[in-house]
Amino acid sequence: MSTHHFVPTTWHNSIGSHPPALHIASGDTVVTETIDAGGVDKLGVQRQHGPNPMNGPIFVEGAEPGDVLRVSIDTMTPIRDTGWTWGPISALVVDPEAVRDLPPRKQVTWNIDRAALTARLAAPPASLEDFVLPLAPMIGCFGVAPKLGQAISTATSAEHGGNMDYRRFGPGTTVYLPVAVPGALFHLGDCHAVQGDGEIVGTGIETCFEVTVTLTVEKGRTITWPRAEIADDIIAIGNARPLDQALQHATTEMLTWLGEDFGLDKVAASHLLGQVVRYDIGNVFDPAYTVACRVAKKWLKRS
Amino acid sequence: MSTHHFVPTTWHNSIGSHPPALHIASGDTVVTETIDAGGVDKLGVQRQHGPNPMNGPIFVEGAEPGDVLRVSIDTMTPIRDTGWTWGPISALVVDPEAVRDLPPRKQVTWNIDRAALTARLAAPPASLEDFVLPLAPMIGCFGVAPKLGQAISTATSAEHGGNMDYRRFGPGTTVYLPVAVPGALFHLGDCHAVQGDGEIVGTGIETCFEVTVTLTVEKGRTITWPRAEIADDIIAIGNARPLDQALQHATTEMLTWLGEDFGLDKVAASHLLGQVVRYDIGNVFDPAYTVACRVAKKWLKRS
Amino acid sequence: MSTHHFVPTTWHNSIGSHPPALHIASGDTVVTETIDAGGVDKLGVQRQHGPNPMNGPIFVEGAEPGDVLRVSIDTMTPIRDTGWTWGPISALVVDPEAVRDLPPRKQVTWNIDRAALTARLAAPPASLEDFVLPLAPMIGCFGVAPKLGQAISTATSAEHGGNMDYRRFGPGTTVYLPVAVPGALFHLGDCHAVQGDGEIVGTGIETCFEVTVTLTVEKGRTITWPRAEIADDIIAIGNARPLDQALQHATTEMLTWLGEDFGLDKVAASHLLGQVVRYDIGNVFDPAYTVACRVAKKWLKRS
Amino acid sequence: MSTHHFVPTTWHNSIGSHPPALHIASGDTVVTETIDAGGVDKLGVQRQHGPNPMNGPIFVEGAEPGDVLRVSIDTMTPIRDTGWTWGPISALVVDPEAVRDLPPRKQVTWNIDRAALTARLAAPPASLEDFVLPLAPMIGCFGVAPKLGQAISTATSAEHGGNMDYRRFGPGTTVYLPVAVPGALFHLGDCHAVQGDGEIVGTGIETCFEVTVTLTVEKGRTITWPRAEIADDIIAIGNARPLDQALQHATTEMLTWLGEDFGLDKVAASHLLGQVVRYDIGNVFDPAYTVACRVAKKWLKRS
Repeated sequence: MSTHHFVPTTWHNSIGSHPPALHIASGDTVVTETIDAGGVDKLGVQRQHGPNPMNGPIFVEGAEPGDVLRVSIDTMTPIRDTGWTWGPISALVVDPEAVRDLPPRKQVTWNIDRAALTARLAAPPASLEDFVLPLAPMIGCFGVAPKLGQAISTATSAEHGGNMDYRRFGPGTTVYLPVAVPGALFHLGDCHAVQGDGEIVGTGIETCFEVTVTLTVEKGRTITWPRAEIADDIIAIGNARPLDQALQHATTEMLTWLGEDFGLDKVAASHLLGQVVRYDIGNVFDPAYTVACRVAKKWLKRS
Repeated sequence: MSTHHFVPTTWHNSIGSHPPALHIASGDTVVTETIDAGGVDKLGVQRQHGPNPMNGPIFVEGAEPGDVLRVSIDTMTPIRDTGWTWGPISALVVDPEAVRDLPPRKQVTWNIDRAALTARLAAPPASLEDFVLPLAPMIGCFGVAPKLGQAISTATSAEHGGNMDYRRFGPGTTVYLPVAVPGALFHLGDCHAVQGDGEIVGTGIETCFEVTVTLTVEKGRTITWPRAEIADDIIAIGNARPLDQALQHATTEMLTWLGEDFGLDKVAASHLLGQVVRYDIGNVFDPAYTVACRVAKKWLKRS
Repeated sequence: MSTHHFVPTTWHNSIGSHPPALHIASGDTVVTETIDAGGVDKLGVQRQHGPNPMNGPIFVEGAEPGDVLRVSIDTMTPIRDTGWTWGPISALVVDPEAVRDLPPRKQVTWNIDRAALTARLAAPPASLEDFVLPLAPMIGCFGVAPKLGQAISTATSAEHGGNMDYRRFGPGTTVYLPVAVPGALFHLGDCHAVQGDGEIVGTGIETCFEVTVTLTVEKGRTITWPRAEIADDIIAIGNARPLDQALQHATTEMLTWLGEDFGLDKVAASHLLGQVVRYDIGNVFDPAYTVACRVAKKWLKRS
Repeated sequence: MSTHHFVPTTWHNSIGSHPPALHIASGDTVVTETIDAGGVDKLGVQRQHGPNPMNGPIFVEGAEPGDVLRVSIDTMTPIRDTGWTWGPISALVVDPEAVRDLPPRKQVTWNIDRAALTARLAAPPASLEDFVLPLAPMIGCFGVAPKLGQAISTATSAEHGGNMDYRRFGPGTTVYLPVAVPGALFHLGDCHAVQGDGEIVGTGIETCFEVTVTLTVEKGRTITWPRAEIADDIIAIGNARPLDQALQHATTEMLTWLGEDFGLDKVAASHLLGQVVRYDIGNVFDPAYTVACRVAKKWLKRS
């Protein structure tokens, strides 16, 4: 297994069958620095316009349509002392008539303490002077090239992954993506220092990271939607609007997973899910929303 | 403050301006036994048809439209050795075409161990033989009479509360409801021994409980949607379809609350919510779905 | 068959099992004057607060749960020289971020020419000086008492009818409603002189009408959602949010109707609907939206 | 102005910045034969896999991002004696629990009488033996390359057009599309002999057509969503899920259009739309649904 230090010189605003920027073997590790969602790098230089410029694509040898690409998010190290967010909360998440009362949208700066691993507003209002957040790094947008020759905007998400903006996609998480083209063509970028559920201001704390991922091809296993594992849970993802449909995709994928890997037919899986399932709202801001269907591993036995 | 032992002899399938079954003073405590969602009591006797027969209404002296009724859920003690659930998961939570593959709906029995405070399927499939759930009691349906002379089915929910089926509405939780009629007219029932997020099989483990609640009128404070407090968090509730709209109601209510009680204007509240908000899906089964907008108290200072 | 001249003295803001204001035989005709959606009568006197005060309920002898109430809308004659609408269009029907740019809500007056049967703004902006609309009267809100002891706000709609705000519910239309309580308990009000699809300003031209309806009990026929017939089409109604769900209810009801009365099984009905169905959006403003599924009678043969 | 007879040899399953297959001047006319949604041509030969293979792209000289491409659909002549549809109606348009009762999906053949311009089922059930439909040709999928380097599946639609499946996109209709890349890169295909509202079986009658379109660049006019004109009406299109969001896009675009071209500010436009707007449901089957906001020209004066 090799480790590649990948320094991109171009970035993409869509995830698709773009020319590979790096070729790796299955199981290799890639270390790369990401620029922020607006295309600004760690030195404050605008390198590409938004939305969400992607490093990549990375061609993983041996990946074929119908395979799964396993993405281990190994580490995420912040590499800039500032981040930014939008405010106020999005018109999408308040009652329609209440939108009239929202203040104008404005970008604000956060200071990131890379020793303490905390973030705070650079110019907080009095009411938030003591508001210091521990960092909880995550990758907002990553995925593999979709089928049918599509190139999908990094503003949105679908079966291939994309701009899911789900806060559990951070270090220690393993994500599984459905390969649709030879080499999988993995892209990543749009890293957040912190983000609440739903990404309801339209951003996490947007900044630059050094990210380490290990990419491995899994043969003989086909999935429809992204899946993930964290220490205690397995997770199936659905991306769509409205939230109801995203939840349907995630739940359907989980039902399939419980049947394939854990020996639970639809009746047994239903008895289990009905009483123990947890749903997370990844984002309720992007063109496609993201819902995660999550089950604790303590309830499951691999079959 | 008095404690009332309330033994209902009639039950309602709607929450509305029905004749009061009990009058209490503000701050009084009520102990009452609930029948299950199908109207069967702790002895197995059918007392009322479904859905979700309500004990009540309880008239709280002094409550007037525009007030808030504070409901402390003090204790919930299971009083029957069995509960039941539906299976498989609802057609609402899988992809529409996948509904064709769902097995037929069927009610199953769970055994409740009232000493160990656990539940398990009475006749589990082999794959769930070791599946033993700790009880996590909650009230599925409760609320106050709505405005405009309405009587709203206990199958659904709205501003007045109702069938929210949110798993955090259990012992230790304090709920705030908007009073719309004199006396508030509080109803409760439909208790669950356990329930996953979303109530995706259409039930929690439906059984009978002895419930103790303390009902207190709060003057000079008006709310639109139910609110709640648990040990670590404050919570605003929205009830509607689709989930997107329920989330809008909950977030709008939270934004108001942060302004009124915690000194955060819309800009400050947005900076906070954007990075720390948590959303729970109460239910995604009833005619109105329920979303909870939740914020940890550690980020807040009462103003 | 008798004709009753019904002069209400009280009005209801919910449709429910209120005490009957009139008893009639099946097949009788009722002539009654309605007040406007805000509760103002033809003389400008406020008679009841809003929303949508209802004349009724009318108890129809012989109607039992499981029957159908046939409502022939015979005539609608405007009885006031003014109507009113809201403006601008609702926050519900523009892009969320565009809500910020909507002007404030304001009620405006229309002059109704009862001889010419036209309406025009009392104080039109220059760009609308020539804007003269032919009247197209319709009943915005009408229905029968719902099941389970419910009383449902006249702001919304459900299986029982209610505030459907569908512009084809005017003279010449026959509507079929599902009876849920003895006597059916028919209510009506909220008449509009004109209304576009969707009721997107939140009102039609709200005014007072003399309405003539003939109410007939149909035994031996059970429906779930309101149905209607106009000269050329049959129509099934769905009421819910989002529009997608309203459309599902309407289409499911139509599928049933085509099977029961027109000899089309699900396969044949699908071949027909797929190529000839028409959908109307009744309203996209009220808490429950309304979608009509419409099929031309020329394609159908009663079986 | 020239006329080009365009005979494609490759087809695309996405609309994007593919290499141009034809270059034309603004104002030129193109005559081309389309293959059906499944990729079968007029001779029954499979030329490309589905979904909805596109002829094109056609590069229109002078078109630049920010311009409008005017597409006049001049003629559509059926060139095959058969078409096909799916049945039964989609799981998307019936109540979720009713999906269980839908028969299996099956493709059926229709005979197209090209002299009489009618279609009928090749093997009709007895109940549809007399069911003969006049042809009403339309283009199901057409559009221009989207922004951000995207290539969007022909199964779906967005600002660029795409698989809108709206039955009024037939001969005599002029469509306006927002140009996002140099040359506009126009694609078309997926023609239907007939289609009901909503495309609720997932197809119109899918067949092959000779289509004549005239493509003209309009400078100095920027639009966000597709617009159209038919003899009596102007139309704005929105593509999204759920229907509510598609309707918001369409209405917002219409509001802009009424302001720019017809001198109606938001207040005046609201008074007009509120009473005269018509909504059509293009499709309620594709990943993005399509809603048309339609206003009769008789109410409008170009300013």
